Amino acid sequence: MTVHEVPSGTRAFDWTVPDEWTIRDAFIEDQDGRRVVDFAHCNLHVVGYSEPVDRCVYLDELQQHLHSIPDMPDAIPYVTSYYVRRWGFCLSQRQRDSLKPGRYRVRIDSTLAPGSLTYGEVILPGRSDREVLFSTYICHPSMGNDQLSGPVLLTALARYLAQRNHDLTYRLVFIPETIGSLVYLSRHIETMRARTIAGLVVACVGDDRAWSMTQSRRGDTLSDRLCRHLLKTHAGEVVEYTYLWPDRGSDERNWCMPNVDLPVASFHRSKYGRYPEYHTSLDDLSLISANGFAGSLAFLNDFILVLESLGPWRTTSIGEPQLGKRGLYPAQFGHMCGYGDELARLMNVLAYCDGERDLVALADHIGERAIDCLPLIERLLKEGLVERAG
Amino acid sequence: MTVHEVPSGTRAFDWTVPDEWTIRDAFIEDQDGRRVVDFAHCNLHVVGYSEPVDRCVYLDELQQHLHSIPDMPDAIPYVTSYYVRRWGFCLSQRQRDSLKPGRYRVRIDSTLAPGSLTYGEVILPGRSDREVLFSTYICHPSMGNDQLSGPVLLTALARYLAQRNHDLTYRLVFIPETIGSLVYLSRHIETMRARTIAGLVVACVGDDRAWSMTQSRRGDTLSDRLCRHLLKTHAGEVVEYTYLWPDRGSDERNWCMPNVDLPVASFHRSKYGRYPEYHTSLDDLSLISANGFAGSLAFLNDFILVLESLGPWRTTSIGEPQLGKRGLYPAQFGHMCGYGDELARLMNVLAYCDGERDLVALADHIGERAIDCLPLIERLLKEGLVERAG
Amino acid sequence: MTVHEVPSGTRAFDWTVPDEWTIRDAFIEDQDGRRVVDFAHCNLHVVGYSEPVDRCVYLDELQQHLHSIPDMPDAIPYVTSYYVRRWGFCLSQRQRDSLKPGRYRVRIDSTLAPGSLTYGEVILPGRSDREVLFSTYICHPSMGNDQLSGPVLLTALARYLAQRNHDLTYRLVFIPETIGSLVYLSRHIETMRARTIAGLVVACVGDDRAWSMTQSRRGDTLSDRLCRHLLKTHAGEVVEYTYLWPDRGSDERNWCMPNVDLPVASFHRSKYGRYPEYHTSLDDLSLISANGFAGSLAFLNDFILVLESLGPWRTTSIGEPQLGKRGLYPAQFGHMCGYGDELARLMNVLAYCDGERDLVALADHIGERAIDCLPLIERLLKEGLVERAG
Repeated sequence: MTVHEVPSGTRAFDWTVPDEWTIRDAFIEDQDGRRVVDFAHCNLHVVGYSEPVDRCVYLDELQQHLHSIPDMPDAIPYVTSYYVRRWGFCLSQRQRDSLKPGRYRVRIDSTLAPGSLTYGEVILPGRSDREVLFSTYICHPSMGNDQLSGPVLLTALARYLAQRNHDLTYRLVFIPETIGSLVYLSRHIETMRARTIAGLVVACVGDDRAWSMTQSRRGDTLSDRLCRHLLKTHAGEVVEYTYLWPDRGSDERNWCMPNVDLPVASFHRSKYGRYPEYHTSLDDLSLISANGFAGSLAFLNDFILVLESLGPWRTTSIGEPQLGKRGLYPAQFGHMCGYGDELARLMNVLAYCDGERDLVALADHIGERAIDCLPLIERLLKEGLVERAG
Repeated sequence: MTVHEVPSGTRAFDWTVPDEWTIRDAFIEDQDGRRVVDFAHCNLHVVGYSEPVDRCVYLDELQQHLHSIPDMPDAIPYVTSYYVRRWGFCLSQRQRDSLKPGRYRVRIDSTLAPGSLTYGEVILPGRSDREVLFSTYICHPSMGNDQLSGPVLLTALARYLAQRNHDLTYRLVFIPETIGSLVYLSRHIETMRARTIAGLVVACVGDDRAWSMTQSRRGDTLSDRLCRHLLKTHAGEVVEYTYLWPDRGSDERNWCMPNVDLPVASFHRSKYGRYPEYHTSLDDLSLISANGFAGSLAFLNDFILVLESLGPWRTTSIGEPQLGKRGLYPAQFGHMCGYGDELARLMNVLAYCDGERDLVALADHIGERAIDCLPLIERLLKEGLVERAG
Repeated sequence: MTVHEVPSGTRAFDWTVPDEWTIRDAFIEDQDGRRVVDFAHCNLHVVGYSEPVDRCVYLDELQQHLHSIPDMPDAIPYVTSYYVRRWGFCLSQRQRDSLKPGRYRVRIDSTLAPGSLTYGEVILPGRSDREVLFSTYICHPSMGNDQLSGPVLLTALARYLAQRNHDLTYRLVFIPETIGSLVYLSRHIETMRARTIAGLVVACVGDDRAWSMTQSRRGDTLSDRLCRHLLKTHAGEVVEYTYLWPDRGSDERNWCMPNVDLPVASFHRSKYGRYPEYHTSLDDLSLISANGFAGSLAFLNDFILVLESLGPWRTTSIGEPQLGKRGLYPAQFGHMCGYGDELARLMNVLAYCDGERDLVALADHIGERAIDCLPLIERLLKEGLVERAG
């Protein structure tokens, strides 16, 4: 992975890389000198991007800088304030209720100063320069499913891809949300526009409670069709969110906007904003599981396998080839004999290797799993009965 | 308004302007010299375009020239005979039943002689020569919703348009049905084909009992889409008639025929042929109301407002623009916070200002009222974030 | 009809014409010299393409060469083995159960030797070289609905076509299934690709129990649309099979494969593989009926009539023509008067003679039977109100 630093003040289209926020310590101390809220215990206690403060305030004033969730008394909310300078603390409702009237010292030892935006990039070149984009965000401290899961999964995927042959080129990017994708686009948009055939925002992929996707802006790109197909044949039921706000919410906002228009959908298990622990201290390691990751990795693996054999494929024969002499057809027919699902699948794959449908459209049309069609394509290719059409 | 006279005998494609019918007096007189049916009381009493007659007839023969509606004993029907010469009287079933056997004098003092067809035309030029057509018919004496309402509404619309700025050019025509649109086409078809982007036949628009439309021949022109969208967001429920006969029945028959093919739908409240009082003396001023007209005028106003800002629009930025620095985005995000419908609408308008969808398609896609998108387009235009694409 | 002989060993794309099978006699004789199974009684008793044998075998071994249907104790199944050399007998389950342990003499006096494949061809040239293909198979000895019905119906159709005027050229082919269509394609593919506008595989068309079709590979060709339309307006309910295996199963497998891609659907009454007697001795003359044939012939007749007047048609007038002066429009209109289905049909045909829709699309759009539109097109053509668009 290559790590890039982009200085504060750098322009990215309509945006500017902001000052970097450094936080060293933060607490609320009561009149007895006890730290009732302490950043050292949990970094969610400070509102992200808080400006420095060191004052004594009465409880009434303090309340205006506190954030908690009445309905979830044990959860510390995750709150940020990127573009307006303010300060604040987050704490559980239970902690907040226990605060007694009186004076408190609030101290946030932070710096907002020119620094840099950091992102990571892994390019895995294939024989073709046609690219697949996977992106994930790295800007949510301490979130489990909503933060940790994406980079962990893409790291595993990068290792897996590095070990296998692939025709396509894979571009994996690890970026702070929104500004990260804009900065990345400002450096690579021409290449990405010219080469990207599919892609996924990989976000919230570590739990094992749901399977879902968010559409690209167009809703019918290859990424959408493949994601939908795999979810349907994987999970039985597709939970599909549109590109309409606020269903969309991560870097697809930039990958897909009209003047960029990359074919990028999003893959999730329990999607951001759609599970109760989202953006609280309860979205921790206990939410995500080995099972969850294994399922998500298998999904991305299938995504890649189908793309690598996407076609469109075209039959080489005129009319139906003679499968019998290749051992692909039963020798004897009789009354109402069953022909077997395997033969039906083979015959239907063949009939729709028409140079028009890619493997996803083919599989959808014949009602089979694209993954189950792969070995048949392989076999037909070996027999010289199909070839790539484009 | 310019009023045009077109002489009888003038050809209009396959048709010829007919002789003009003048009616001065008409009555049925019984043996006692009493006028039992009198044109002076109600001009519906004479079959439209009746040839002159002055004879004595027995009731049996008279019956063959009478028209009434058994199911509506108090209604006088509206009957015409344009292309076959005959004479007749219309009366209520109650009147008809009271006629006693015996001799009657029937007199119709009418003339069928060369004269002219009269139509009115208002052209309101805009900065662009792209045109919107509104047409209404003026040939149904004494009908309320089915006749008076259209010209009244278009007159109000002409006044309204004359007072406001508009980019588009508006063509309002007041014509006798069928032959009027053919005559009008014979004079303006090239211009109309080249310039008309949308249009409506405005017919039966004065009552307050229903909202409905009739499709253009293609059924999916801009006029259809916009009319459908406005009815849906106005009235909640769209009553939509197809172009199939006899659903179609007014001048769209000519505006939309294959060799003309203008994108013209029809707007109605209670549509001709679809309300009980239609083509009877009961379709009088009591059927139409200020509320009805106000609703219809508001509808046409919205129709015009959307056309004037139709786009398609295109975002000027690469990726999402920074709304925060323009005061268009909330400064602080937290746990499951609602973002407000206003922000959702703005974000979705932006995402689909893609240079492909016009405002109607955009609004339909994002599930908003086009009218509610107008101030957002205005604001985005002012911020330089969108521009016209075509 | 021209009959063609194609020698064994002739290549047809990926296939080769096989040796010809001649069968002279076959029987199973028990120890008492009685022929318990005898080809002379029913030619289904021998597995098609059986190699010669003349041996004595015990019942246990014999059983491995016997075919029967436990669920249909009186039916002799129809079994073939084209591409693997073997021998076998077919018999009813009842016969099979009556076989006693012991020795049997099995004799099949057959030859597999170079010979020829035979097919028939009728070309009926029209004024245009645009072609319609009808194909049927001739390779199923003794089957009634599944074999005899197709050639019988196409023979009747050929006679009918020879007696009437037609613009289109008709190509009727009578071929052994699969290899026959490949051989035929190998000789005519360029012509067929260039000229075929529609076609049907005619198979299983003699019984009177069902109406059905099998889609072409594309599923929306003219043949599909017309077949679907006629079935819907003929039989009320369309039983429509897709091109997915094993729904497809006859020569459409070759006519429609990607590199051939002719617009050919299939027409059936009770379709092969979908009725209980299929591929047994019960599919005999008792299954098919004069009523069945008459219905099927009427269907093909309608298929041809619509193709001959397919259009697309285009109105010659600008706007609506004046139907009144041609006696096509009622002279007098009044309150809520009905206009009659005939006028509605005429008006709707006229409105959609737009140079875009062929007659099938037109009829589907206006909700009428294409057959009922034919006399109207005829009348409009005579009046000069429509013309062919392409």
